Amino acid sequence: MDKRLEELYRKNLLETKRKLKACVSRDWLIIQAVNAVGEINKVSNMLSRRLREWYELHNPEFSKLVFDHSKFVEIILKKSREELLKEIGLAEDETMGAKLPKEDIEPMLELAKSIKSLYELRALEEKYIEKLMKEICPNLYAVAGNMIGAKLLALAGSLEKMSWLPSSTIQLLGAEKALFRHLKTGAKPPKYGIIHEHPVILHSALEMHGKMARMLADKMSIAVKVDFFKGKFIGDKLLEEIKRRAGK
Amino acid sequence: MDKRLEELYRKNLLETKRKLKACVSRDWLIIQAVNAVGEINKVSNMLSRRLREWYELHNPEFSKLVFDHSKFVEIILKKSREELLKEIGLAEDETMGAKLPKEDIEPMLELAKSIKSLYELRALEEKYIEKLMKEICPNLYAVAGNMIGAKLLALAGSLEKMSWLPSSTIQLLGAEKALFRHLKTGAKPPKYGIIHEHPVILHSALEMHGKMARMLADKMSIAVKVDFFKGKFIGDKLLEEIKRRAGK
Repeated sequence: MDKRLEELYRKNLLETKRKLKACVSRDWLIIQAVNAVGEINKVSNMLSRRLREWYELHNPEFSKLVFDHSKFVEIILKKSREELLKEIGLAEDETMGAKLPKEDIEPMLELAKSIKSLYELRALEEKYIEKLMKEICPNLYAVAGNMIGAKLLALAGSLEKMSWLPSSTIQLLGAEKALFRHLKTGAKPPKYGIIHEHPVILHSALEMHGKMARMLADKMSIAVKVDFFKGKFIGDKLLEEIKRRAGK
Repeated sequence: MDKRLEELYRKNLLETKRKLKACVSRDWLIIQAVNAVGEINKVSNMLSRRLREWYELHNPEFSKLVFDHSKFVEIILKKSREELLKEIGLAEDETMGAKLPKEDIEPMLELAKSIKSLYELRALEEKYIEKLMKEICPNLYAVAGNMIGAKLLALAGSLEKMSWLPSSTIQLLGAEKALFRHLKTGAKPPKYGIIHEHPVILHSALEMHGKMARMLADKMSIAVKVDFFKGKFIGDKLLEEIKRRAGK
């Protein structure tokens, strides 16, 4: 009897493991990748701020001129302090930065190189996400675009879970904090979550943002249902409707 | 008159800039570098945790076996899932991880490569810090070691500021939170700050930690004063005394 129980236990365990294995679907990969991109963004910003503080001992005027971190990194890797000072028209005795020997500059530039390669990594992961999105949820990809679609998937938890969501929930994904503040304190309800990054909303008039978000979430909820049940590609039609409604 | 005022203003500005420039001393570079190392540590931990979550879809058993992030990254870059499963003695149907195609594994490994290069960057910056420490504060370097000395400098603000600190303050650098809790609420005072990472303290009996910290801070405060006033090298003597007092 004992042996049979043991055998049953072993088989059960294997069966469970097989099930766990089988449920690793490809939308999970999208979610991991999009979370990684989020993390890479955070990390490269942290390191860039540190790099700037360091580099500003050496050439503060230039650092203040370039706001974009990735551009800043790109340029200081290419051009020396002397070249940059010439470009902004400052003589050596007009700059506040100290002239440092090469051995002190190199460690800064090594940090800059690492940041640059993090930006390259991000581009690579975004391409991978795009490939997966086109393959797994072409309709959502068409309507929401690459990163917004993937972020919505990550917030919903999976393609299946997202396909069950009503469009009003999709509209507010990413605005949970504001939503619960509304429910708790009666503050104004949020009109959109991360859907707000969509160009259709960004390019419409401010008073239309709420309407556009509702309309977009509507189309996305249709798109994701079609994707989950492996329907035909209707992304182009949905997109056309969106453009018509946005008045473009 | 106006013109003379303008001229005076311009000259004053230049003078101020020159002064600012001149005060960029090399201990500032140590501080920037040691802060960068701290940031790199944080960042590589964040990315490693993310990588593990991603990789565990694929090979969870192995990830659970290796605690050290840098080892983990090293190994998964070298060996495939099949090789690792063989090493831990699991058959394909016994693992909970899904077998993924190569195109889905590559984006993970790209992230792993980035993390690895961050570790390399850290090693490089630590070497740079060591070079600077030996050059600027050889006595502090001898007594405190590379990273602890540099961190103390960063906490104090500069070599000059640190040379003004009494040894009791040096002993508590990095334990500000506990110190103010003590002053405010009357909780137990802290016995040591980041000085606690020093091998002499780590390797002594627990009840001796406070004593050792006091003794070490003592020697460090002597060392840093000698360094700031460009005295002779007495690091070896201080170190000998420390060893004698630590009973080694």
